[in-house]
Amino acid sequence: MTVCDSILCDTIYIILELTPSLSNHPLNHYNTSMQRTLIAETTKLVGKEVLIKGWVNTVRDHGKITFIDLRDRTGIVQCVGQNLPKLSPESVIEIKGKIADRPEKLINPNLETGKVELQIEEVKVLSKSDELPIDMGKEQLEVELPTLLDWRSLTLRHPRIKGIFKVQEVVIDSFRKALQEKDFTEFQAPVIIPQGAEGGAEVFEVKYFDHKAYLAQSPQFYKQILVGVYERVFSVNKTLRAEPSVTTRHLTEVTTLDAEFGFIDSWLDVKKMVEYVIKYIFKEVDDKCSDILKEYNIATPKVPKEIPMIKLREAQEIIYKRTGRDNRKEPDLEPEDEKEICRWALEEKKSDLVFISHYPVSKRPFYTYEDPNDLGYTMSFDLLGRGTEWLTGGRRITNYEKLLKNAKDRGVNLEKSELYLQAFRFGMPPEGGFSFGSERITMHILGLKNVREASLFPRDMERVDIRLSTLK
Amino acid sequence: MTVCDSILCDTIYIILELTPSLSNHPLNHYNTSMQRTLIAETTKLVGKEVLIKGWVNTVRDHGKITFIDLRDRTGIVQCVGQNLPKLSPESVIEIKGKIADRPEKLINPNLETGKVELQIEEVKVLSKSDELPIDMGKEQLEVELPTLLDWRSLTLRHPRIKGIFKVQEVVIDSFRKALQEKDFTEFQAPVIIPQGAEGGAEVFEVKYFDHKAYLAQSPQFYKQILVGVYERVFSVNKTLRAEPSVTTRHLTEVTTLDAEFGFIDSWLDVKKMVEYVIKYIFKEVDDKCSDILKEYNIATPKVPKEIPMIKLREAQEIIYKRTGRDNRKEPDLEPEDEKEICRWALEEKKSDLVFISHYPVSKRPFYTYEDPNDLGYTMSFDLLGRGTEWLTGGRRITNYEKLLKNAKDRGVNLEKSELYLQAFRFGMPPEGGFSFGSERITMHILGLKNVREASLFPRDMERVDIRLSTLK
Repeated sequence: MTVCDSILCDTIYIILELTPSLSNHPLNHYNTSMQRTLIAETTKLVGKEVLIKGWVNTVRDHGKITFIDLRDRTGIVQCVGQNLPKLSPESVIEIKGKIADRPEKLINPNLETGKVELQIEEVKVLSKSDELPIDMGKEQLEVELPTLLDWRSLTLRHPRIKGIFKVQEVVIDSFRKALQEKDFTEFQAPVIIPQGAEGGAEVFEVKYFDHKAYLAQSPQFYKQILVGVYERVFSVNKTLRAEPSVTTRHLTEVTTLDAEFGFIDSWLDVKKMVEYVIKYIFKEVDDKCSDILKEYNIATPKVPKEIPMIKLREAQEIIYKRTGRDNRKEPDLEPEDEKEICRWALEEKKSDLVFISHYPVSKRPFYTYEDPNDLGYTMSFDLLGRGTEWLTGGRRITNYEKLLKNAKDRGVNLEKSELYLQAFRFGMPPEGGFSFGSERITMHILGLKNVREASLFPRDMERVDIRLSTLK
Repeated sequence: MTVCDSILCDTIYIILELTPSLSNHPLNHYNTSMQRTLIAETTKLVGKEVLIKGWVNTVRDHGKITFIDLRDRTGIVQCVGQNLPKLSPESVIEIKGKIADRPEKLINPNLETGKVELQIEEVKVLSKSDELPIDMGKEQLEVELPTLLDWRSLTLRHPRIKGIFKVQEVVIDSFRKALQEKDFTEFQAPVIIPQGAEGGAEVFEVKYFDHKAYLAQSPQFYKQILVGVYERVFSVNKTLRAEPSVTTRHLTEVTTLDAEFGFIDSWLDVKKMVEYVIKYIFKEVDDKCSDILKEYNIATPKVPKEIPMIKLREAQEIIYKRTGRDNRKEPDLEPEDEKEICRWALEEKKSDLVFISHYPVSKRPFYTYEDPNDLGYTMSFDLLGRGTEWLTGGRRITNYEKLLKNAKDRGVNLEKSELYLQAFRFGMPPEGGFSFGSERITMHILGLKNVREASLFPRDMERVDIRLSTLK
């Protein structure tokens, strides 16, 4: 027999006593043999012989009889066999056997496949796992965040953790779908830029051949340029901020969702588009992630037909009345204020979300549109939900002279902003847009405590995969 | 009247002589007035009064009568009026008027809206354009690449240039759709990494607080880790290479499309998945971008049912026989060889694409699977098309000890690769995957000469938006 290119070359064979007839020519047997059955399909195959493949989720040894919960991308199924060799959790195995109905009293209502089990005839180990540093068999991982991240390649496999990034996938995909349905064009924004987008301080510097370049904090300039090309655009971006503090809400690397569109009749068109997108996302998460929401014992945020919007000054007045905390002269909301105004919105407006508008001109980027009816304040807003800021948006200045003046006044490098400013010299419609982070919305949909839990491989000033302090 | 937040506040009014009755209360008139009609809809509205908005594509002045081609995101329509004021190309305007059939002999068969025209009653300038540095009215922009990029915010608006990124949008979106249909999970790969993915030299360094970090050249490690979590994953990534040469095929920043999947029966499963994805993309581009392909006078690459695959050594033998060029001892194909083998594939196999497999172990990354039947050569391939490499893929090593040994031998930093190696300690199925750049495939679909044309804002060692040499 020639050596084949199949996976068999790497594998270890374990042929069980109870199926001695299969043990003679395992290679031949498997080569000509069965297609893999996905675990979710097993419920429809009672009485049939199948081959399933996956990870050993848990092993329960009852003397001669062993129960294995096998996990693949579609689910988990219980397998039962006799005289099995020792199988370590997380090992990758193939099991051949017959699907059978479980006895009535052994049905597990919490498992999709809880009415059936697989009677093991043959087990093949494709990849043996080391002993686990963490008990992965528990319903919830009982580890602190640093440990969760130190063992990230393992802990991500836990069904509950895995679910977080299925929600994030749906958030991002439904953001795209929502905007595609409104005739937006998707574009790819650059990550290397000639300067910090808004002349900001917290920007990462890159050694770019003989020059310095920077990492994009936002695709703002590019999405505005592209309104001049496609009218309506969106992008899913990597944005990077040299966030010098370690909080539960900040990462240095974020996947942001950005949209921008022209020919608005009013800045309120931007608010309306946000409402549409956010509701679209919640609906998709409800439809596609109901099992995960159930697992987390949470519902997507409650939103009325129209999400309430109040001016910053109104919010401060409300907070003052409710708590006695007088921040009425502040240009922004403090974390405590954000929590309080969210409580107010839920109590008074039956909404988990609330827009705060009219931040002062001085607290917003140079391209933000000033309200001609309320000078000193901007036609811009933040969307707050479940206690923190989710999203920011508003109308932009499109008048070249005004934009140029503001850029100069704020110390923006005009030379390096040339392409951006150029766009406004050649005709730009009234426009606006918004931006939000996929990690924060995922965090808040699932009620996670720390935004790091909502990033597959979170980066902060202390960690890039590994703890930086441990580096030699 | 109070000042409103509408766009009207910024605009300049031009009320035409031929509609004197409208000139009395333009603000009131517009405020209570018509919804915008998109240009593509005008053909169905003959005889109707409409309001259209967009950019002045071209102006043709015939004494008293002026023709304006107005452009919005849905198309271009001819508008005709008398005694119009001077309107500069690229200005953003609104036009109110009546749609009329064109006289038979004035029908323009090359324009979607060529059977109608809009008879102008009123024009409003929303944003006046400066004089253009480039004649944007020509069917093809007659400028060299540096000029094309120096005026990028303007040149992107040219219908022919705009089309390139509609094709790219479809390429990326259909890549995602193809894999979603095969049950792949989308993930977001990090851009900041603790080391160059494969210990490579051409990696950008980032000042990361008190440490050094790097920009990802590929999401390879992360997609492999996630095979352990979701079995089948894909991502759309920003990848960065400090490419120190200026060629027509290289950029420092690329949007790559990556896929990886487990439980393969053979490395040929990876080839099959590539074929499926590539064909899916071509079909979507055919369906959705037929007008752009026609504009470029090109068809998507021709592919037979099975795309031919030959080993590198066979390719070298073929090249030797066809050209007398003896590169049979080389570990790779030179650019000339790539072109020649593509010619061979088209002539002999009626295929614009060809897979070259079995590159030497030494020329491939440390995680590449060696062919047990052809030691020294790998179960990996490149996909070549229309003269250059498009895509690379293959089977990976999943045996922890073997992977660790290879990593050590190649000088990979084990400490910084901890999460990656960790994944293989805890059970990994046989797996493989592939990766390709969205710019290159877009370039080759449209037959562009330089990959920079297929990047919205191309970065190379000489340019990041602006020419770096011009920086003070």
